[in-house]
Amino acid sequence: MHNKPVIALLTDFGSRDWFVSAMKGVILTIAPHSRIIDISHHVAPGDIHSAAFSLMAVRDSFPPNAIFVVVVDPGVGSERRALAARAGDYLFIGPDNGVLSFAFRRQKPLDVYAADNVDYYRKTVSATFHGRDIFAPLGAHLANNVDISSLGSSCFDFISLPWPAPREEKEAIYAEIIYIDHFGNAFTSITGEMLARQGRTPRALTVSEHHIIPIKRYYQQQLEGALLAVVNSAGYLEVAINGGNAAETLGLSIGSPVVLLRNAD
Amino acid sequence: MHNKPVIALLTDFGSRDWFVSAMKGVILTIAPHSRIIDISHHVAPGDIHSAAFSLMAVRDSFPPNAIFVVVVDPGVGSERRALAARAGDYLFIGPDNGVLSFAFRRQKPLDVYAADNVDYYRKTVSATFHGRDIFAPLGAHLANNVDISSLGSSCFDFISLPWPAPREEKEAIYAEIIYIDHFGNAFTSITGEMLARQGRTPRALTVSEHHIIPIKRYYQQQLEGALLAVVNSAGYLEVAINGGNAAETLGLSIGSPVVLLRNAD
Amino acid sequence: MHNKPVIALLTDFGSRDWFVSAMKGVILTIAPHSRIIDISHHVAPGDIHSAAFSLMAVRDSFPPNAIFVVVVDPGVGSERRALAARAGDYLFIGPDNGVLSFAFRRQKPLDVYAADNVDYYRKTVSATFHGRDIFAPLGAHLANNVDISSLGSSCFDFISLPWPAPREEKEAIYAEIIYIDHFGNAFTSITGEMLARQGRTPRALTVSEHHIIPIKRYYQQQLEGALLAVVNSAGYLEVAINGGNAAETLGLSIGSPVVLLRNAD
Repeated sequence: MHNKPVIALLTDFGSRDWFVSAMKGVILTIAPHSRIIDISHHVAPGDIHSAAFSLMAVRDSFPPNAIFVVVVDPGVGSERRALAARAGDYLFIGPDNGVLSFAFRRQKPLDVYAADNVDYYRKTVSATFHGRDIFAPLGAHLANNVDISSLGSSCFDFISLPWPAPREEKEAIYAEIIYIDHFGNAFTSITGEMLARQGRTPRALTVSEHHIIPIKRYYQQQLEGALLAVVNSAGYLEVAINGGNAAETLGLSIGSPVVLLRNAD
Repeated sequence: MHNKPVIALLTDFGSRDWFVSAMKGVILTIAPHSRIIDISHHVAPGDIHSAAFSLMAVRDSFPPNAIFVVVVDPGVGSERRALAARAGDYLFIGPDNGVLSFAFRRQKPLDVYAADNVDYYRKTVSATFHGRDIFAPLGAHLANNVDISSLGSSCFDFISLPWPAPREEKEAIYAEIIYIDHFGNAFTSITGEMLARQGRTPRALTVSEHHIIPIKRYYQQQLEGALLAVVNSAGYLEVAINGGNAAETLGLSIGSPVVLLRNAD
Repeated sequence: MHNKPVIALLTDFGSRDWFVSAMKGVILTIAPHSRIIDISHHVAPGDIHSAAFSLMAVRDSFPPNAIFVVVVDPGVGSERRALAARAGDYLFIGPDNGVLSFAFRRQKPLDVYAADNVDYYRKTVSATFHGRDIFAPLGAHLANNVDISSLGSSCFDFISLPWPAPREEKEAIYAEIIYIDHFGNAFTSITGEMLARQGRTPRALTVSEHHIIPIKRYYQQQLEGALLAVVNSAGYLEVAINGGNAAETLGLSIGSPVVLLRNAD
């Protein structure tokens, strides 16, 4: 491989402790030439759903052969398996708790292994920090061109999170909030494609009985401080406030219902 | 170029979402050999002024040929232009909203381009994430030694933020708070040079009617918990508390007035 | 040296300002080939104890020859010395305030220098930012294979923080909380070795008169939301809640007493 291998890390370890850097130290010990990129370490503790969504959303911004190491792992130390997977051009390492599963959606071929070969673990494995002792070493060995099939045996019964698909009915699409970002923008489960499939572009999204939100192309098409919906960079219709925090203002959280009324023609 | 190109990122994207890593993934896809350094991603959402100040303050700590990519961009998706600039030994990419302008102060030569050549954008450009789709690719192409003049046409009417210059009068210098850091140290607009121009070094700064703050050389010249003013590492007279948070204690914010009384000789 | 030198940074600079990136810019100016890894920049301002603990805990996850640059430095600008040290396979740079001392525990050989050779400082040294002007340059010069003895003269009277060793008595071990992590897990000063020295593994830790905490092997051996103690990845017995925040729930802070009752045989 001409370019240096890229390892991207996604955890709920926060930035106050040394945990993330312990993973990086281990990676550089095994694979000194790898490039390490942080996706985020501020996933809420144990929030598998948000981590899975983030991984799915960022995946295709990375160069081919990137190795994603994801450690949102409330089951650390228990019998849950470590997974190694190849999906499309990318490699994935993480616990078998569904955190990788959104990144596998619509992706073929998909090879998944239960990575139980301790030769590719750290010599001593603690009961509380598999990020350092299992997942980082597995990612680093992949960066060293160890074949993924060496890490364990094929696995077909890994855990997948249910995808919160909208319910498309005659008069409306019934959907929900699936991610809330740092700016307070609330992603709905309605994709840009679903919106495009409507004969004419619908003009409004209903977020509760009290909020009819106009659909715009970008934030500044709306007045400062006013609500809008926009198809965002991840491909989802998002509820936003130009210059403000929509989730906070509307009291939205993951799972809050939204309704897209079809146009009467 | 012998050394690897350095790309420094400054945004208001925070660290919870995948946004910064999407920019890095795009950069590594286009320019795999570049070194990526984070300046900060914790600029308050849309705070162009603080980002502009940070960029100005950090600029000269970087090696020559460093490429600064700044994305504090409340106007994303609208008609505001993307800028590419060369100022002194450095290159700059960012929106045309003034965020680059403090870094251009007193700097000649200065070449600024409206970077509208979509050949150097990402193939699909979203309406909400120009960091990933426009600014990161532009920076990466500069790292690949694309000539800056290829990115667009010369631009002379770019936006500059007004610099909050102190008013130097006979008996006093009237100035204001221009930056507040993580420790609660409040930077005034009074520079070390202005202070040196006073016949004798003034002994005190007035921050409100109630606070006469002694000027010291370093924090520990003052008692723990006591107020002082010191010329800081960015070259500005700063209001601080040894071991404490001055901005919080005094209720200072950007724009708060301060007065430096000249010495009676 | 075949592999690129690794420089690991640990500071209390936070992530909102440009301070950390100024250090990195200076490092890349002096030693363009070095790899820079962040341990943390979210040490509480001036919290020398927690930084010292973090450095000790992460040290051995790094590859040999790693250079640790630590800047938790409330005495910046005063007469406190800068230290450069070699301990085992690692190099250390930091202020002489004890912040390096936990990483030196049980480590021989140990060479410590007072790094007062200004040839290896930045040309102009500010009174408020030795991270940028002294510590980063010293680390970068070590990365360039400058011999550590060139940085200054041997130093034998550097400051060591007292180690909070437990008091092992006949019926019990009296210990205390020595670190609290991002998840609210509270590390006690009781090591896994101390625990193993008990004839049979003790079954419970007393954290206050009201809490008898069962000792488990990993988090999920306890019910969700319930207290447990576990020997953690740093080698210390830790008070945790499966899926919760133990320090917050129990009101623990650094120094809170804990007692391990020996088993009656």
